[in-house]
Amino acid sequence: MASDKGVTPRSEDFSRWYTDVVQKAELADYAPVRGCMIILPYGYELWEAVKGGLDRRFKETGHQNAYFPLFIPESFLKKEAEHVEGFSPELAVVTIGGGKELEEPLIVRPTSETIIGWAYAKWIQSYRDLPVLINQWANVVRWEMRTRLFLRTMEFLWQEGHTAHATYEEAEEETRRILDLYADFAIADAAIPVIKGRKSPQEKFAGALHSYAIEAMMGDKRALQSGTSHNLGQNFAKAFDIKYLDINNELQYCWTTSWGVSTRFVGAIVMTHGDDKGLRLPPRMAPYQVVIVPIYREEDEKTPVMEAAWRMKAALVAAGIRVHVDDREGQTPGFKYNDWEMRGVPIRMEIGPRDVEKQSVALARRDIPGKEGKQFVPQEGVAAAVQDLLESIHATMLQQATGMRDANLFEIVGDYGRFGEVVESGGWALTWFCGGAACEQKIKDDYQCVSRCFPFDQPYPGQQGPCIVCGHRSAEMAYFARSY
Amino acid sequence: MASDKGVTPRSEDFSRWYTDVVQKAELADYAPVRGCMIILPYGYELWEAVKGGLDRRFKETGHQNAYFPLFIPESFLKKEAEHVEGFSPELAVVTIGGGKELEEPLIVRPTSETIIGWAYAKWIQSYRDLPVLINQWANVVRWEMRTRLFLRTMEFLWQEGHTAHATYEEAEEETRRILDLYADFAIADAAIPVIKGRKSPQEKFAGALHSYAIEAMMGDKRALQSGTSHNLGQNFAKAFDIKYLDINNELQYCWTTSWGVSTRFVGAIVMTHGDDKGLRLPPRMAPYQVVIVPIYREEDEKTPVMEAAWRMKAALVAAGIRVHVDDREGQTPGFKYNDWEMRGVPIRMEIGPRDVEKQSVALARRDIPGKEGKQFVPQEGVAAAVQDLLESIHATMLQQATGMRDANLFEIVGDYGRFGEVVESGGWALTWFCGGAACEQKIKDDYQCVSRCFPFDQPYPGQQGPCIVCGHRSAEMAYFARSY
Repeated sequence: MASDKGVTPRSEDFSRWYTDVVQKAELADYAPVRGCMIILPYGYELWEAVKGGLDRRFKETGHQNAYFPLFIPESFLKKEAEHVEGFSPELAVVTIGGGKELEEPLIVRPTSETIIGWAYAKWIQSYRDLPVLINQWANVVRWEMRTRLFLRTMEFLWQEGHTAHATYEEAEEETRRILDLYADFAIADAAIPVIKGRKSPQEKFAGALHSYAIEAMMGDKRALQSGTSHNLGQNFAKAFDIKYLDINNELQYCWTTSWGVSTRFVGAIVMTHGDDKGLRLPPRMAPYQVVIVPIYREEDEKTPVMEAAWRMKAALVAAGIRVHVDDREGQTPGFKYNDWEMRGVPIRMEIGPRDVEKQSVALARRDIPGKEGKQFVPQEGVAAAVQDLLESIHATMLQQATGMRDANLFEIVGDYGRFGEVVESGGWALTWFCGGAACEQKIKDDYQCVSRCFPFDQPYPGQQGPCIVCGHRSAEMAYFARSY
Repeated sequence: MASDKGVTPRSEDFSRWYTDVVQKAELADYAPVRGCMIILPYGYELWEAVKGGLDRRFKETGHQNAYFPLFIPESFLKKEAEHVEGFSPELAVVTIGGGKELEEPLIVRPTSETIIGWAYAKWIQSYRDLPVLINQWANVVRWEMRTRLFLRTMEFLWQEGHTAHATYEEAEEETRRILDLYADFAIADAAIPVIKGRKSPQEKFAGALHSYAIEAMMGDKRALQSGTSHNLGQNFAKAFDIKYLDINNELQYCWTTSWGVSTRFVGAIVMTHGDDKGLRLPPRMAPYQVVIVPIYREEDEKTPVMEAAWRMKAALVAAGIRVHVDDREGQTPGFKYNDWEMRGVPIRMEIGPRDVEKQSVALARRDIPGKEGKQFVPQEGVAAAVQDLLESIHATMLQQATGMRDANLFEIVGDYGRFGEVVESGGWALTWFCGGAACEQKIKDDYQCVSRCFPFDQPYPGQQGPCIVCGHRSAEMAYFARSY
């Protein structure tokens, strides 16, 4: 069992390690309803950082936020055949309202394509109304009893974008633009090196023409789908009658898209970067980028140390850096170091009597343990030094994650046995794949994994190769890996 | 019927005027589920401004955001007697999940005291854990079929703060601190002059020791409760066993509070400030503070006018002003003026060929119609002029709303007939009130109104007077008014 202060070592039991870290760093807790979780303040601040990073990018690309109802009439769900089939087993249904049995049960939204489709049909008349570029931040519910905090919960928070366009090309462009935006966010803000690609027909969203995703490798090498973007074609437009008069005054069905990132992304941050000491937060996402730990023994040391600590804080805040002074009484500096390492703060600033004397501070990096990650810098100009260090930490974390991932990607051609060895040992296999349901099912049965995506970045563009299962000529290679 | 471009005059039918404005300014629309609404992008931006103004104040006063589950076990609701009685008629109940009948039905949260009480009981052990100062931004559901957009909807968005303290005094201080914070937000950000006070025992929150509220007078003189803050005493602590070990190592029940502001506040902004031409948005809340309308006839006029328009926009954006250039082709300036008046943008900037020549622009205030509200200012230094004008518009709107309100407050002592005349004609009556249920019920039966609050600001502090109904000596005066 994990000690009160530590966590199960990551190498020993990744799953236990994850749960320990999420709880001990106070990101989330279990709820009284099975399948649900409580997002604690520190975890919610991480989610706010995800929201901030994405929302800014959505607005920069012309999207607006709106809010659609939680409840969807049951009949709506049934209008798109694939969609209802995909979501039926996962629904929570309200049958009683205001003390009375409802005539038509209401579904707690598992996703909002249907109700937004209804609204778009009402709002869109002419090509002049297009494109419609709307996003919503909301909670959704998919029935699920096996909770894994952030990764798999009955209720989760997410954003869901829903757009309508005049042509296939525009919808496709939007779908790809959003995937690029997600990847940019993951890499630039969260230091998670994601792979962009297209889902197989089996793995696409229920009702989509095709789905794209960003896939990330977690610390145990499993894949985590971290964001998805769907070109819905005209499927929902036909189901909900979303039509517009084109420039020639002819009625046309719209082309729609939808795309989402959820609180699952918080789990991705934990599992990509964490280590045996706990969380490691990428500097751009960290609620606190710097924690200042004052060090003193005698009372007469305290005043100058605390004065320096608050002065350093003021200098960092003025530079826009998020910083916290840990002035808890009755806790040793060592306890505080462990505590903030658990919480993943990128930089620890130590200030003791000798630092006050020397007009310097010690900066310890969370990403590089021990002496190697520690340096003394002058108090004068500390903000610039911290800023540089935060940049360097981001770069190092991205590099570490990329290195770990690339060491576990294996290109396999034609050798199904070797393919099995790779995925069973946790690696990702990149292999020619026909995309067929039977081939994908066989891999699932044999090796408990499915395709992650056909990556955009193909190693042999324009060439063909034999599907790893059936041997038929295939135009693309796909990644296969065990996943969350 | 309202024309396609205008709205029902406010004086003719306030209720129709309200619905017209909300729909024509594209703040909200009806949803397919009765009782629900869709918040449109422009309305959602107003809600984001409410969120921003409140969230900043919460964080400045030491509160943190978290997120608790949407679903509450039915048994939880039943633990606090008054609470279950208050909310039972309004519940939406999930009875089917994942295709199966649930053993225990789940309530879609109408408010979260119960589930948060459960969590606090688990988290709080010692006086060192106190206070707990948590807020959540969430959707809640209260069964309701008579929709009034923003004012009364089955589902609404809100923030709900939930805090736990060691003593009654600290809980009371928190409850009042939040009420002050709400009032400061309403006045300083939304230019809504609110009255702070205590609710009568009949009008308090189900389960509270006492409730405070900010009450605002709408354009039709009706009262709108715009934010509430409840001292829950030890009611929920006892129901959920929220205890802490005090400094003497003795177990004590906590004292808890809860407080909320909802999307209803968007309705308050519309109904406080709007006029026959549509919305009038207080500058600090307005999604766009300035709209620039370029004016030109000939193609050769267009280039210099548009160049000036974009240059003005850049100057304003650099000063942190939210601005939009209305460069729609095929719409006349007059159409654009009406459109932005409907949407309530505080300042319209007109730029025509003569303005280009004179290096000036025209600024028209939304709060003062016609020539009186229009001025020409040099392009040089335009941002400072706009900034000053926005301040002035805020002050004028607050003054207008305060003047309108104060003209409709009437102090009534002892004369029940006159009291009736005042409230029936839409005024607010300030009168001695014993607070008794029978007296309040009689007023409700006679005049279709209940007490709004005992205002903190009492005209005769320390004195007593006869209750307007029963004549018993009463220590405080209360406001009575018809309300939303």
